[in-house]
Amino acid sequence: MYIPMEPSSRTARPTIRDVAAAAGVSRGTVSRVINGGHWVSPEARRLVEDAIAETGYTVNQHARSLATGRANSLAFLVTEPQHLLFEDPTYSLLLRGATQALAERGMTLVLLMAGTEGERRTTLEYLRAGHVDGVLLISSHASDLYIGELAEAGVPAVCSGLPAGPAAGAPAVSIDEDAATRAMVRHLRGRGRQRIAHLAGPADTPGGRLRHEAFQDELGEGYDARLVEAGDFGRASGAAAMERLLAGGADFDAVFAASDAMAAGAVSVLRREGLRVPDDVGVAGFDDSGLAEAHDPPLTTIRQPWEEISREMVALLLEAVNGAPARQVMLPTTLVQRAST
Amino acid sequence: MYIPMEPSSRTARPTIRDVAAAAGVSRGTVSRVINGGHWVSPEARRLVEDAIAETGYTVNQHARSLATGRANSLAFLVTEPQHLLFEDPTYSLLLRGATQALAERGMTLVLLMAGTEGERRTTLEYLRAGHVDGVLLISSHASDLYIGELAEAGVPAVCSGLPAGPAAGAPAVSIDEDAATRAMVRHLRGRGRQRIAHLAGPADTPGGRLRHEAFQDELGEGYDARLVEAGDFGRASGAAAMERLLAGGADFDAVFAASDAMAAGAVSVLRREGLRVPDDVGVAGFDDSGLAEAHDPPLTTIRQPWEEISREMVALLLEAVNGAPARQVMLPTTLVQRAST
Repeated sequence: MYIPMEPSSRTARPTIRDVAAAAGVSRGTVSRVINGGHWVSPEARRLVEDAIAETGYTVNQHARSLATGRANSLAFLVTEPQHLLFEDPTYSLLLRGATQALAERGMTLVLLMAGTEGERRTTLEYLRAGHVDGVLLISSHASDLYIGELAEAGVPAVCSGLPAGPAAGAPAVSIDEDAATRAMVRHLRGRGRQRIAHLAGPADTPGGRLRHEAFQDELGEGYDARLVEAGDFGRASGAAAMERLLAGGADFDAVFAASDAMAAGAVSVLRREGLRVPDDVGVAGFDDSGLAEAHDPPLTTIRQPWEEISREMVALLLEAVNGAPARQVMLPTTLVQRAST
Repeated sequence: MYIPMEPSSRTARPTIRDVAAAAGVSRGTVSRVINGGHWVSPEARRLVEDAIAETGYTVNQHARSLATGRANSLAFLVTEPQHLLFEDPTYSLLLRGATQALAERGMTLVLLMAGTEGERRTTLEYLRAGHVDGVLLISSHASDLYIGELAEAGVPAVCSGLPAGPAAGAPAVSIDEDAATRAMVRHLRGRGRQRIAHLAGPADTPGGRLRHEAFQDELGEGYDARLVEAGDFGRASGAAAMERLLAGGADFDAVFAASDAMAAGAVSVLRREGLRVPDDVGVAGFDDSGLAEAHDPPLTTIRQPWEEISREMVALLLEAVNGAPARQVMLPTTLVQRAST
């Protein structure tokens, strides 16, 4: 079914009310007939079909989608395992900003999860079918294959965090990882710390790679690769990274972790080993999504502007939906000093 | 645009690959033209339009939706404020069961939130437009207006929990509230408790109303309205209800709360007042969605079969999508005895 975009498709047309009135049935019955649903008697179906022919009714949401390519909705697509959606508070914060931004525009937010290969396949089919106008791509991985697949399918998308590789120029909202990391290193030095360890995130994520690069660059000659261990942003990986540092006999008086969760894991290990935070070791994290403030001691961290990130993603995505060229936005962060440093 | 359901619409048809081959362009370009997207040159658009006419291509997802009424997706619609989705672990458990059930069928799960009036309106538009085949209605409130609105729009829906009022006969998956509550009362009596208080949920929810009714009926002559206080299933409301009971000088040796969260709130108040659990007061909850097991002391509770509930909802919904008459399923629960009684 191919529908050319004729100017006439934008003029006033008979509505579903007209069809219902002509058929002498309820709007619900008309809707059920049009949408191919059940629970309609053959008599009612015939009345509705006749009324559609009589009134020249053509606009329903499907047909409008065909004519304009708009579903009046955006997808919030999380390409992580489902349990992370509930365990990692950043998703809740990002979702809140996107929800508000869409509510202001009278649009629907559609949350889709594609943490498995099967979900990835069915979700892509759903997106290709035009059920949303664009995709807010929520992924911690810069190498996400979805970017290319969506571009190939002609579905506009905006990434959270700077994409890498072939998708490097795709629309994205990121934070200034470089400035944030340098500010934290300077803060720790300003507190008298001389040997700063780094618990990095995965190298295939912007937050893992860029924070480590800026950390190394800011330390310059003072950078010591023996003081760097990597994790997956999760608490357990921060504890394990700290255990590896201590087991290797590393000498440090501060730790900058790439996430608050990793920082919390590191603190638990330091304590177990009889080291005091911040007296013996200052510990700083990254994110400020709730955990840092509630932690004992409260964690010095980098506050990401979560709601602003997703609101900006919505604005950029609507630009893309309207045919604007790809654009990337970088937002500033704030260093929040608390008791852990 | 009205498309009758002709038998021919179900036979093999030219695919998007045939159109791309005939036009000498990529499938992505064809997709962009069909979906009314941008980023297509006028030349490419003309080539694709000619190829569509030449091949007789008609099936795309929109057109297929029009012809069959199927989007190959179901909505998981939460009619609660967004923050509850993340704070209440039952949503995560229900979502897991639904996700698995849909993955097995190669269908997409679309998560929609309608906690505000604005979201309610835009979400209803989205559902009316046929972007999903049916709705898993996740709501704690039996009086939810959505049931009627969806029926009117011809969108099949299945409720979590027994609906009340005009929607009383709608498809639903619920638990046997009556048997669960009676089993808990008998358990507490079996532990030697003689005066059992009840912290009820809201009267406009199945879990609030039916648990209270069964509690009253099981106690019979022994029912004492002074030992009943209501809350909203949340922890703070359980604490407040317990404070009201104690302030009123109520005499009780056991508490049956309508949720584990309310039970936990009650325990915190009992402790503050110097009462020991279970020595002075036995406390039982309802749900077993994680909190009860992790609580100190671990809570005796009623285990709801969360994943089975949502899997059953998916099965019922697909029946309804295929035109089967409304059906309700009631699942059994399990009493889990732990240290709190």
